[in-house]
Amino acid sequence: MIRHRPASVTLADLEALDRDDPLRTLRDAFMLPDGVVYLDGVSLGALPRETPTRLHEVAARQWGQDLIRSWTVHDWIGAPQRVGDKIARLIGAGRGEVVVSDSTSVNLFKLLAAACRLRPDRSLILSEPGNFPNDLYVAQGFQGLSDGRIGLRLVSADQIEAAIDEHVAVVLLTHVHYKSAAVHDMARITARAHAQGALALWDLSHSAGAVPVNLNAAQADFAVGCGYKYLNGGPGAPAYLFVAQRHQATTASPITGWLGHARPFDFIDDYTPAPGIGRFLAGSHPILGITALEVGVDLMLRADPQCRVDKSRALSELFVALVESRCAGQGLELASPRSPEARGCHVALRHAQAYAVMQALIVRGVIGDFRAPDAMRFGFAPLYNRYADSWHAVETLRDVLHTAAWDRPEFKQRQAVT
Amino acid sequence: MIRHRPASVTLADLEALDRDDPLRTLRDAFMLPDGVVYLDGVSLGALPRETPTRLHEVAARQWGQDLIRSWTVHDWIGAPQRVGDKIARLIGAGRGEVVVSDSTSVNLFKLLAAACRLRPDRSLILSEPGNFPNDLYVAQGFQGLSDGRIGLRLVSADQIEAAIDEHVAVVLLTHVHYKSAAVHDMARITARAHAQGALALWDLSHSAGAVPVNLNAAQADFAVGCGYKYLNGGPGAPAYLFVAQRHQATTASPITGWLGHARPFDFIDDYTPAPGIGRFLAGSHPILGITALEVGVDLMLRADPQCRVDKSRALSELFVALVESRCAGQGLELASPRSPEARGCHVALRHAQAYAVMQALIVRGVIGDFRAPDAMRFGFAPLYNRYADSWHAVETLRDVLHTAAWDRPEFKQRQAVT
Repeated sequence: MIRHRPASVTLADLEALDRDDPLRTLRDAFMLPDGVVYLDGVSLGALPRETPTRLHEVAARQWGQDLIRSWTVHDWIGAPQRVGDKIARLIGAGRGEVVVSDSTSVNLFKLLAAACRLRPDRSLILSEPGNFPNDLYVAQGFQGLSDGRIGLRLVSADQIEAAIDEHVAVVLLTHVHYKSAAVHDMARITARAHAQGALALWDLSHSAGAVPVNLNAAQADFAVGCGYKYLNGGPGAPAYLFVAQRHQATTASPITGWLGHARPFDFIDDYTPAPGIGRFLAGSHPILGITALEVGVDLMLRADPQCRVDKSRALSELFVALVESRCAGQGLELASPRSPEARGCHVALRHAQAYAVMQALIVRGVIGDFRAPDAMRFGFAPLYNRYADSWHAVETLRDVLHTAAWDRPEFKQRQAVT
Repeated sequence: MIRHRPASVTLADLEALDRDDPLRTLRDAFMLPDGVVYLDGVSLGALPRETPTRLHEVAARQWGQDLIRSWTVHDWIGAPQRVGDKIARLIGAGRGEVVVSDSTSVNLFKLLAAACRLRPDRSLILSEPGNFPNDLYVAQGFQGLSDGRIGLRLVSADQIEAAIDEHVAVVLLTHVHYKSAAVHDMARITARAHAQGALALWDLSHSAGAVPVNLNAAQADFAVGCGYKYLNGGPGAPAYLFVAQRHQATTASPITGWLGHARPFDFIDDYTPAPGIGRFLAGSHPILGITALEVGVDLMLRADPQCRVDKSRALSELFVALVESRCAGQGLELASPRSPEARGCHVALRHAQAYAVMQALIVRGVIGDFRAPDAMRFGFAPLYNRYADSWHAVETLRDVLHTAAWDRPEFKQRQAVT
């Protein structure tokens, strides 16, 4: 995709690439503020133009006019499975293997419990230190609830495979690391888990829509993921979960809400799980949230998968190459794998003043984010980011560093949320 | 409020009551279709006119323009506590005792686990048969996860108090019964639970915004409730949970997601619960859903509490009295307490052909719902229902029964969702 070496590439070259981009029409499907280079789709994806219209339609016409009947006439009741089946196509899952439900945290809790029940003679959840903290926290909470029966063992990424032994019930990993963007070899680790009689649970929050994911080719057992990053489902969008078909009949959710019941509208006292993936539903699902998520997922499905993977790699690779050539000697260190194949579609840079540098960038319209203690993340969303974005981001970063523009007290004062 | 006896009351009398209704301006704050008598706020509350506008503002301006920064500049991060504090005012709770989070099912799971941990030497959850099935299902799921340590015991409503003994960890009841609308005496049952060393967990789904609720006066320990019935938060709206201040420091959620962490943005590996009610949060919260819920809650707060309680009782009492006088001998049986003080703000009627009768009513624009096996529910929402609605509903019901208009095959064929 990049036909120029970083040392000689010009903004005009990159603008030409943007004009020829086969995904260019998808950029126009998003609403992005003028003058902003938005590189934080790794945290919150951009707004699809259609989303406010769809929300209005669902609120004003469906809810407002058709009221309770909308659960049937607009198939609100089937939304978790309908959108789940669409997400399945993005992550190499089959129909009836994915359902939209709750938050990533809650789904992770359900699937950890389900996995540990499938391996009642085993006592360990295996993960890595520095995994997305949420996932470690949820595992710790589940551990606490098990009265000491379940333990959590953390070993570094390169020790994971060796650490899978006969005590491990489930390997819990984030496929693309939330900070470094390092990608785990899903197929290899899953195969190693299975060889040892363990199960594999993958968090796809930083993968879906960003890098190739093929759950069934990798024989993955379980997966979760969030809807608000590359799927562009909006702030706090509903999450999703995957349970391989082969496990569905023999596994159960610990949170047995009525919409996971085989016949919820019979209103009987005893719980019987729904036959398929539906048993992992719990309470009434959020129609407004699923509406926005479906718009984002539909847009993602319009992009040729190879095109978007190629483009996000090209964007992040261009960024890294430009940083190396234009920001050398400015105290930056690449905190992501150097090879684009080995990382997701964001890039992390370390800097001693990372927080202040990111604040200075944001003030200048380049929006990435900070991850404690010293990393800046820049996400390259293939649907709406442009080659010129990488150029402008690096030029601004260079200027901020060169002029020490970050060295102002207000940039150093950390806010609770960043 | 009703100045006429049912036998002599006329539609004109009731229209006059509607004109004089101190809550009349609130009716205008809702968007309801013409020609429809909507009596299903007990299942899905009506759409506030402001909701589509607010959703557009949050989607198009906050998400679309301010993007990730909205978590701070529009206080998305504080939304669960902000809206929780507003709901607290409706249910007799204090600031910092209520938080908006997840679904009622998930919240119930969290609080059952929290309650059982506070009473580690006790093994029973006590509830009643025919409680809202969801709540029984969640208790059964929690029981399954406890490896037999926790049991679920069901005794009929009139036996609850006698059944609270030294084995009971927590009494789990729906304050207003989802079908019959019968109201439990929250203060008395809670006092009895405390006297026996047990805790009380109340489901307020059919109470909040409908009947007087005073959690702290009753010394309740825990509560949950949904946002989509009388709070008018929209389909699948986020739910809320209450933990009495005195329990907060010593109790914990089993689902320890990152937003329940004391310092989520430090991204450290070990979980430390947030100091207050925030520890019961889990994943990133649904901003679109909370936006819609806040509009509904704000409207509810605009109504004088005594006015709305008086009005919903008057509406349902008028309905019952009209049914008694106009539909006698038509095979109807009141399935709710006869005294308005003893029931919530919906009324259940039994009929051998309840499903078909309700379908015939719906076709004629009177929308209530069916609850298996033989009940029709009619909800009287004080904010938007009118005295004339009760009249039209009963006249239509009378006509449907009198002419056997329900006796058509298509009315008898049950759909999955009703």
